[in-house]
Amino acid sequence: MNRENLIYQINKKKSFLCVGLDTDISKIPNHLLSCEDPVFEFNKQIIDATKDLCVAYKLNIAFYESNGLKGWMSLMKTIEYMPNNLFTIADAKRGDIGNTSEMYARTFFESMDFNAVTVNPYMGSDSVEPFLKFKDKWAILLALTSNKGSCDFQNIVSKDNNELYKDVISISSKWGSDKNMMYVVGATKASNLSEIRKLIPNHFILVPGVGAQGGSLKDVAKFGMNKECGLLVNSSRSIIYSSDNQDFAQAARASALKIKLEMEDLLNQF
Amino acid sequence: MNRENLIYQINKKKSFLCVGLDTDISKIPNHLLSCEDPVFEFNKQIIDATKDLCVAYKLNIAFYESNGLKGWMSLMKTIEYMPNNLFTIADAKRGDIGNTSEMYARTFFESMDFNAVTVNPYMGSDSVEPFLKFKDKWAILLALTSNKGSCDFQNIVSKDNNELYKDVISISSKWGSDKNMMYVVGATKASNLSEIRKLIPNHFILVPGVGAQGGSLKDVAKFGMNKECGLLVNSSRSIIYSSDNQDFAQAARASALKIKLEMEDLLNQF
Repeated sequence: MNRENLIYQINKKKSFLCVGLDTDISKIPNHLLSCEDPVFEFNKQIIDATKDLCVAYKLNIAFYESNGLKGWMSLMKTIEYMPNNLFTIADAKRGDIGNTSEMYARTFFESMDFNAVTVNPYMGSDSVEPFLKFKDKWAILLALTSNKGSCDFQNIVSKDNNELYKDVISISSKWGSDKNMMYVVGATKASNLSEIRKLIPNHFILVPGVGAQGGSLKDVAKFGMNKECGLLVNSSRSIIYSSDNQDFAQAARASALKIKLEMEDLLNQF
Repeated sequence: MNRENLIYQINKKKSFLCVGLDTDISKIPNHLLSCEDPVFEFNKQIIDATKDLCVAYKLNIAFYESNGLKGWMSLMKTIEYMPNNLFTIADAKRGDIGNTSEMYARTFFESMDFNAVTVNPYMGSDSVEPFLKFKDKWAILLALTSNKGSCDFQNIVSKDNNELYKDVISISSKWGSDKNMMYVVGATKASNLSEIRKLIPNHFILVPGVGAQGGSLKDVAKFGMNKECGLLVNSSRSIIYSSDNQDFAQAARASALKIKLEMEDLLNQF
């Protein structure tokens, strides 16, 4: 999906919600466990119940990989099931030397047809560039993450008085464009978004950590929104595990709707 | 495998060689392509031909993941086939928020029984700690990698006059010990090893980039060896693709033997 289409979907749906399919077999409703592929069945019902309220789905690859072959089957079935007006993110946090990153890119962009992959910037340009060579595909670079350990290195201040995450953004943004790169900035650091917007006024920013991780959607919009929205805000656990009963998909829909309506308000205000 | 056993294997075999099983189906000898699982068959024969000459095998996960379900099958069969006096490394470069890193750790340490996983430090302490909670298992953190883009961020100098990779080493080394952590330092940066040894005199260092990537084994030993050796030096392409004929395994053995004899010399000199 290209930038224009993503912006079109956001305007049409009045939503910049990304639903995180961090599907953990130990947390899904019991009645699904008798299905042939409980994880896929769960995802399918969540997608059916939320696809008109969100513009993107983010699949945390660890949750699938940890189930071995079965997990990869669930992952592939889920990505095949996905309606193609939805932006799909493989949250894989990959990044390696050139020929290896190229293999990861082919895995997620060709074998599985994801629109985007999250990429760790630590190894530099040649670890990211292979992800930028695919038409209408995206690399989403980690910049400032929402976990407690993020400050260990991401906030180290350089001689030039820049925090590392800012150097990551300003250096890496030259490797591609706002048409094939986005950045991860955690919602718990929403106030940093205004600083980040000075470096990348037009890029999309993927914001995890709204909901279970405690970030405020209002602050994210206040500091991070640009004239084309420029945000994808992810919520995983607080949507998909809204209920562990038969009604789990409707409950997920209700949680997603609540966020979507708040987003509609924020988009109208901007 | 614990530290004592690893040191014992190095002394017994007079080798600190790690063979990289970056097995690319497009590069293995044609006659193997008719096997049920060509990648596993290739690995099996390489292991049989080199296991007395090396102390470790490093499997680059991208090469397996890019083959989808078949690739995971080859990976699992290879790790099951591995003799247990060999140290096994999942070169996965993972790292995510705590609960996700925990899933990756379980995948590689429990489902697959690897001894070690390479981990990207960018997300900080809680992204690494889940890998340190398993008895006799190891996290191998990226510090200074051998690719050309490594200088983009790893060499950024902080206000305190430290390059980022040194901060990564000195800060992260407190999260675990020399019994469950190692560091990746590329052979193309061998002279940096003496600086690094001041920070971590006792930790093992995994050195990729000897061979095809051009680093010198002699320099690595000169600057990086400690009294317990403290090095695992990896070579992938220049060993496993020594021939693309029927004799590929013997040719790989000959290449490995050449390096092993050089290592024996260096160990005797130290």
